Amino acid sequence: MQWYVVASILTIFTSSQGILTTLSQSNGGYKYDYATVPFLAEGFKLIVSSVLLWREYQRSPSPKMTTEWRSVRLYPIPSIIYLIHNNVQFATLTYVDTSTYQIMGNLKIVTTGILFRLFLKRKLSNLQWMAIVLLAIGATTSQVKSCGEASCESVFSSPIQGYMLGIISACLSALAGVYTEFLMKKNNDSLYWQNIQLYTFGAIFNMAKLVLDDFRSGFERGPWWQRLFNGYSITTWMVVLNLGSTGLLVSWLMKYADNIVKVYSTSMAMLLTMVLSVFLFNFKPTLQLFLGIFVCMMSLHMYFAPPNMLVDLPSTAKTEPESLVEVSVDRKSAS
Amino acid sequence: MQWYVVASILTIFTSSQGILTTLSQSNGGYKYDYATVPFLAEGFKLIVSSVLLWREYQRSPSPKMTTEWRSVRLYPIPSIIYLIHNNVQFATLTYVDTSTYQIMGNLKIVTTGILFRLFLKRKLSNLQWMAIVLLAIGATTSQVKSCGEASCESVFSSPIQGYMLGIISACLSALAGVYTEFLMKKNNDSLYWQNIQLYTFGAIFNMAKLVLDDFRSGFERGPWWQRLFNGYSITTWMVVLNLGSTGLLVSWLMKYADNIVKVYSTSMAMLLTMVLSVFLFNFKPTLQLFLGIFVCMMSLHMYFAPPNMLVDLPSTAKTEPESLVEVSVDRKSAS
Repeated sequence: MQWYVVASILTIFTSSQGILTTLSQSNGGYKYDYATVPFLAEGFKLIVSSVLLWREYQRSPSPKMTTEWRSVRLYPIPSIIYLIHNNVQFATLTYVDTSTYQIMGNLKIVTTGILFRLFLKRKLSNLQWMAIVLLAIGATTSQVKSCGEASCESVFSSPIQGYMLGIISACLSALAGVYTEFLMKKNNDSLYWQNIQLYTFGAIFNMAKLVLDDFRSGFERGPWWQRLFNGYSITTWMVVLNLGSTGLLVSWLMKYADNIVKVYSTSMAMLLTMVLSVFLFNFKPTLQLFLGIFVCMMSLHMYFAPPNMLVDLPSTAKTEPESLVEVSVDRKSAS
Repeated sequence: MQWYVVASILTIFTSSQGILTTLSQSNGGYKYDYATVPFLAEGFKLIVSSVLLWREYQRSPSPKMTTEWRSVRLYPIPSIIYLIHNNVQFATLTYVDTSTYQIMGNLKIVTTGILFRLFLKRKLSNLQWMAIVLLAIGATTSQVKSCGEASCESVFSSPIQGYMLGIISACLSALAGVYTEFLMKKNNDSLYWQNIQLYTFGAIFNMAKLVLDDFRSGFERGPWWQRLFNGYSITTWMVVLNLGSTGLLVSWLMKYADNIVKVYSTSMAMLLTMVLSVFLFNFKPTLQLFLGIFVCMMSLHMYFAPPNMLVDLPSTAKTEPESLVEVSVDRKSAS
């Protein structure tokens, strides 16, 4: 499959995630324990990856699988980074309001670009850097509070700690992504085998969180496994399956495309959610939403269009076959 | 002088124009008749151009001057277009509020690009088109009403006639600019001789407007020449000289650079005015102002940076001298 097909599906799924989660609420609250959703999604991903690995095993040549501890021990690292990230996010919210928090979230687009360059040593052209910054700006523009909305603070009015934590959070999020890409690409192991390692640790960390929550609340709602499917509706199950599928698509992109493709997918998903909310939830479209969408679309074109389409290269360069090979970012496609 | 030096001075002067005009008010109103300002500015431009033409005449070779009626008769056309434009603007304001009106003004950036391509047959690369659209988006973003501001209407809530007139207005403004560029570049006449023709008709049209205003008001404030310097302060004179200088710089750019350079100058001036207003008039900076400035800066870089700086061209193309000549927009510089 081509990477852009997978990226488009990821956009649709990520966008559905927000909408399904909203639809799964009843009377503005959750009837089920939301913390159980990521755990079940990890389970779903594990099952799918195991089935696919088994199918791959039936065929010849059998899939490549590195089982040395030296390799396996790297797979919990993304989960550990996400764990720290979640706690930093939580701390950030004690300093800043949700709207500032949401806007700062776009910083991860830029930090991903930086870590992508520093750790994965991937070169980006001047124009691609501008495209990444424009994507962050476009996403932020679409989220600017319109006049008339309730809570309305001046820019940069939160305490400095809030912004520092926001930056740390953006770096951690980028680090987790870049590290996962490194893991997936470091050898040509089967994607499904890599997934199994990744999701096993993911499931363990999610379970640990559920247990910890139980201890914190003094087991007043009983142990976590007793409320695993409590209050689950069809929509809740769709939230689980959707979240699981999103994870599988991200893994695929990390191996066969890269972090920047993922960042574009999820940013476009944010915009798609806002557009769908106009129709589904009578959300009032703002001028800044239109402007933001335009900027992101142009950023997308700037980043991915072949350079000879963007600038008028001399005709000699156009006909040379190596001219395209040299400039295009190495992005493989898998079946 | 290099075109970018002139363009930078134009940005500073255009920005000062708004600030000086605000400073020339007393108690929120004008003590002088504002309609006399453009007339005096035309007079100032005529004097400066005449002096410079006379100086050019002293030297050899003497300046080229086409005095045939066939050529001279083209010079009132920009004034006529501006006259129609002003009336359309006035009509637009009866349908839309000032904030929508200001935002629609950015349309002229895009219409200038289109007419520049259609009438002057100047080719722009895909990237330069994107840069022009981004400039319009960036300028609009900076003007988005922040939450908490008084008048707050939904987007696109004005009657359709307002938007139609806004589009017509943007086309007329672009047409005047593109036509002036055509006039200035159609032969290698002395710039000062071309200016004299342009400003003579400009002065006539401005005078006609003052006379018309007198008839409309039934001469209740006396004939226009009696109130020409009434209530003029030092600041008012600075407004006149500044407006005149702006006009001279625009003429220079039309001959030696182009409309797109002018559009960038004036858009940057709008942003500069907003930034200066933060310091001078305690204007509260908004997040969208920062975002808009970023987008416009990137647009500037995208439009004017040499393509081999933006994308990683194959090394063979970089060393070929014609590769740069072919892609750079033909922009001459004069002393």
